[in-house]
Amino acid sequence: MKIGFIGLGHMGSPMAKNLLKAGQDVTVFNRTPDKSRHLVALGAHAAAALCEVCQREVVITMLTDDVAVSDIAFSNAGLIASLPEKAIHVSMSSISVELSKRLAKAHALAGQRYIAAPVFGRPDMAAAAKLFIIAAGDPATIDDCMPLFESLGQKTSRMGAEPAGANLVKLSGNFLAAAIIEALGEAIALVGKAGIEPHLYVDLLTSTAFNAPAFRLYGSLIAEGSFAPASFAAPLGYKDIRLALAAAEQLHVPMPLASLLHDRFLQLFAQGGDQLDWSAIGGLAAHDAGQRPDTSASSTRSAA
Amino acid sequence: MKIGFIGLGHMGSPMAKNLLKAGQDVTVFNRTPDKSRHLVALGAHAAAALCEVCQREVVITMLTDDVAVSDIAFSNAGLIASLPEKAIHVSMSSISVELSKRLAKAHALAGQRYIAAPVFGRPDMAAAAKLFIIAAGDPATIDDCMPLFESLGQKTSRMGAEPAGANLVKLSGNFLAAAIIEALGEAIALVGKAGIEPHLYVDLLTSTAFNAPAFRLYGSLIAEGSFAPASFAAPLGYKDIRLALAAAEQLHVPMPLASLLHDRFLQLFAQGGDQLDWSAIGGLAAHDAGQRPDTSASSTRSAA
Amino acid sequence: MKIGFIGLGHMGSPMAKNLLKAGQDVTVFNRTPDKSRHLVALGAHAAAALCEVCQREVVITMLTDDVAVSDIAFSNAGLIASLPEKAIHVSMSSISVELSKRLAKAHALAGQRYIAAPVFGRPDMAAAAKLFIIAAGDPATIDDCMPLFESLGQKTSRMGAEPAGANLVKLSGNFLAAAIIEALGEAIALVGKAGIEPHLYVDLLTSTAFNAPAFRLYGSLIAEGSFAPASFAAPLGYKDIRLALAAAEQLHVPMPLASLLHDRFLQLFAQGGDQLDWSAIGGLAAHDAGQRPDTSASSTRSAA
Amino acid sequence: MKIGFIGLGHMGSPMAKNLLKAGQDVTVFNRTPDKSRHLVALGAHAAAALCEVCQREVVITMLTDDVAVSDIAFSNAGLIASLPEKAIHVSMSSISVELSKRLAKAHALAGQRYIAAPVFGRPDMAAAAKLFIIAAGDPATIDDCMPLFESLGQKTSRMGAEPAGANLVKLSGNFLAAAIIEALGEAIALVGKAGIEPHLYVDLLTSTAFNAPAFRLYGSLIAEGSFAPASFAAPLGYKDIRLALAAAEQLHVPMPLASLLHDRFLQLFAQGGDQLDWSAIGGLAAHDAGQRPDTSASSTRSAA
Repeated sequence: MKIGFIGLGHMGSPMAKNLLKAGQDVTVFNRTPDKSRHLVALGAHAAAALCEVCQREVVITMLTDDVAVSDIAFSNAGLIASLPEKAIHVSMSSISVELSKRLAKAHALAGQRYIAAPVFGRPDMAAAAKLFIIAAGDPATIDDCMPLFESLGQKTSRMGAEPAGANLVKLSGNFLAAAIIEALGEAIALVGKAGIEPHLYVDLLTSTAFNAPAFRLYGSLIAEGSFAPASFAAPLGYKDIRLALAAAEQLHVPMPLASLLHDRFLQLFAQGGDQLDWSAIGGLAAHDAGQRPDTSASSTRSAA
Repeated sequence: MKIGFIGLGHMGSPMAKNLLKAGQDVTVFNRTPDKSRHLVALGAHAAAALCEVCQREVVITMLTDDVAVSDIAFSNAGLIASLPEKAIHVSMSSISVELSKRLAKAHALAGQRYIAAPVFGRPDMAAAAKLFIIAAGDPATIDDCMPLFESLGQKTSRMGAEPAGANLVKLSGNFLAAAIIEALGEAIALVGKAGIEPHLYVDLLTSTAFNAPAFRLYGSLIAEGSFAPASFAAPLGYKDIRLALAAAEQLHVPMPLASLLHDRFLQLFAQGGDQLDWSAIGGLAAHDAGQRPDTSASSTRSAA
Repeated sequence: MKIGFIGLGHMGSPMAKNLLKAGQDVTVFNRTPDKSRHLVALGAHAAAALCEVCQREVVITMLTDDVAVSDIAFSNAGLIASLPEKAIHVSMSSISVELSKRLAKAHALAGQRYIAAPVFGRPDMAAAAKLFIIAAGDPATIDDCMPLFESLGQKTSRMGAEPAGANLVKLSGNFLAAAIIEALGEAIALVGKAGIEPHLYVDLLTSTAFNAPAFRLYGSLIAEGSFAPASFAAPLGYKDIRLALAAAEQLHVPMPLASLLHDRFLQLFAQGGDQLDWSAIGGLAAHDAGQRPDTSASSTRSAA
Repeated sequence: MKIGFIGLGHMGSPMAKNLLKAGQDVTVFNRTPDKSRHLVALGAHAAAALCEVCQREVVITMLTDDVAVSDIAFSNAGLIASLPEKAIHVSMSSISVELSKRLAKAHALAGQRYIAAPVFGRPDMAAAAKLFIIAAGDPATIDDCMPLFESLGQKTSRMGAEPAGANLVKLSGNFLAAAIIEALGEAIALVGKAGIEPHLYVDLLTSTAFNAPAFRLYGSLIAEGSFAPASFAAPLGYKDIRLALAAAEQLHVPMPLASLLHDRFLQLFAQGGDQLDWSAIGGLAAHDAGQRPDTSASSTRSAA
């Protein structure tokens, strides 16, 4: 299969690499052409123009947000204009339910195929081909893409025939992860102010009932109070909470916990935290409780 | 070691059984004497009066709430009055930080020893001796009790020399679990109203990034919309959220998510849900979104 | 001054009438031409097309929302295209900060003048020329419009030289009013469930410390539990809360109370309340508390 | 009528003075006897012991909180023990619904009469005999006390035959006032961060739709950012929000806005604000938005 791959950021770059490793014929495109170089060294073709990467059998997009995807899709020589009939657009970015519906409609009108296949997983999981892929859309089209998904992730779950359903599930997953961050942030602020050592507390939690990776990862970041460099930047996390709330508005679903998370991100940005990892919202409960990061503890620890 | 065991409810009863199985000399006491019978059949002594069960080397209390523990401890012939000098009170109930501090003070004045050792785990884990025990207090006293803890749980974590610290950690754990229930409730309301089948969604979550037991257990209860019979009754969950908030008040820690959970329980009780499992608060987001339990779906499923 | 008036709804219609009463030369335009008829009877000219009403010295817009204003402003023969140089667009609708900024920029580029002059007040106050007008923009341009404002309202307050500032103040005012509705809703649910008669309670409040018109108006609607017909429809109130939150997002201002109001509107819509007055969100606290509207009480009362 | 008056703080002292002015025979009692002196100079009798002030026809209590009232009422030579049969205890403090119910029961058992008559108003209103009095209990007993109320306030509203109802209404009133503070705090943070001058904004609000005294008073304090010295101290405001939430718990009424206020007070205390006026919670929204009090503005203003 001849594959086009658009978007070579923290996630897209290792994903394209895994497709190459699996022997696929991959043409890559990125607005900043520099990012293509190391993939070309691994055998990728570099498209000089957007319209070129769009003339493939399958085109994967893995971009930052709605604006980026919508530019790629609806610009003059973009995906809708250039993708051959019957060819497939596999949208793997975290985008809004609304944009996914618009894409589905536009591709259908153009006689092209479209599925949504967003992922759970951070860059290290992308590199290890351990992503969880949530695929929705026409079942036969998903079947056609399964070989690609198998090169990219550890598991592909199907979420029905409506592509936008997969996007909603992806957004809900980031909502759940952010909820865990907030819950841990409040719990650690509480026990921490009572004098319990945060790392000891997180070790206890994650070795008992709360042994999911999210508890380990975020618990340890919050206990450490260290949110830089960002693995998943706060503005991206905020974007997903907003898109979840936008979907909730459309569906008339009140989500008070999502609203709380929304406000936490604004509080973080107001304090200059927009360069931090999104788990930094988990430090705000301690901040509101008048606690300051115990830098001595973390330095002691890192010295140990 | 001669052990007294007070409180033979859903948790205490299997715990006392496990001590007997381990060959311990156990005297049991319960206000409703009937509950002692099956333990006597297994070799336990039944104390006729509270003061009798208190005259042992170690007395474990596993009771419903502050009122019950405080009655047992501070009544005329109760624990403080009757426990021998140097004997140990092991308080394993989920009680308030404040009561735990009062107990520590009273036992110290009476020359008795006191540790707090609340647990994570539901009745089935108590029966399987798989509880997670959080012990705090004088280290040597905890050492003395380790053989008992090994008969009751799969792991004992130490949380410092202040008994009340263990109680706070226990309360924070129930706060975290309730936060997961709320987050799942909102997520399932959102995707459910978009037409995604809740069981499929929960299966996806728990087979990917959200694979902790709490997600499986509560996710499936919420997807099913079936909250009876209660495994952990809503009023008990509410009690623990209130005690966490009471500790947060003392420490001046704002916990907006805990406040949300508090209000969810009141909403549940106002709608007559006080007999349900505490995970029923996870059904309120769908209720607020105007969704009614899809009984057909669940009956189909149970027929499958 | 030759005035164009666009938008003859619940607010615009009595406002246009007051301008006519004051002897102004008014040309009106509405998409549904029927609405012009009674004003023509009072001396207004009816514009047959949008471009016609735009060729006046001052054009007032009083429309439902951003979409309506933006259509009128940016369409082919719309305000930006048709308003004469130096002529003034007076935007009196409740629109977003963002749209107001776009209008300011577009009018400036076209050599036209633009001020924002949204109002506090419901239709009865518009009819009585008792509106409170909040004007922002170039001071001299506001000066030029003062005779009009004096025919429309009881007071004009200036809010600086940035037109969008007036729009933000207007949105903040509707946020404050909705906050009062929520606060009254919770208070009435509380005392009502304790057996205190809601009308008696509201009478007490409004005859003592809480004697602002908002308390009287909304308190009595909530006590009555009667939210139809709508004087200010719930979807319009929701729109303004969303626009306030959108401004708060841009400025990084967490507004937890605004988020709560946002979720209340979704809860109301999920229960089919989108035809009701916006004060119906004040009935949700009683709903969550398991109370049903006491129709007997209100019928008794209305019979008295 | 021979009156006993217990509690000579910011409120009680001017109230006792007004009774003396009206020609009443008043015996005063305060734990700190110094506080009686200026009233004795005005004609009051000073009771040397609690039991002495209790032997009057009517005893008014105006104390800080539940603990103080309950000490006075239930101590050995306290009100319940010493008040003559048929004599009246008029409880004017802001106390809990629960304590008011206990007092009603105890007085009834002792053959004494009891009404609750808490007030709306701050110390300046107490001095001017302009309090709003909310009276509940046996109507005939309230009748007997009307001459006193007429010397203390501008209006007495009756709230039914259950004394505790008046206490609940009083608590709900402080909840409403705190809700206004929060709403103003968020609104001022929003418009302030957009560059609108806070005093100008508050002047606009209070000269238009939001013209209740609470908006003027709190709006100006928040705009000024000046919360010391306290007229009504934050811990007292917090106490009343907690008592309102305690009543809401008993009645199963979820009050999300009250929960938000509860958390605001904890945030304030965590930042060392327990000496400030309770309106200081209205400064937290700006704090969360990253704004610092603009001291230059306020100094410019005070220089003007």
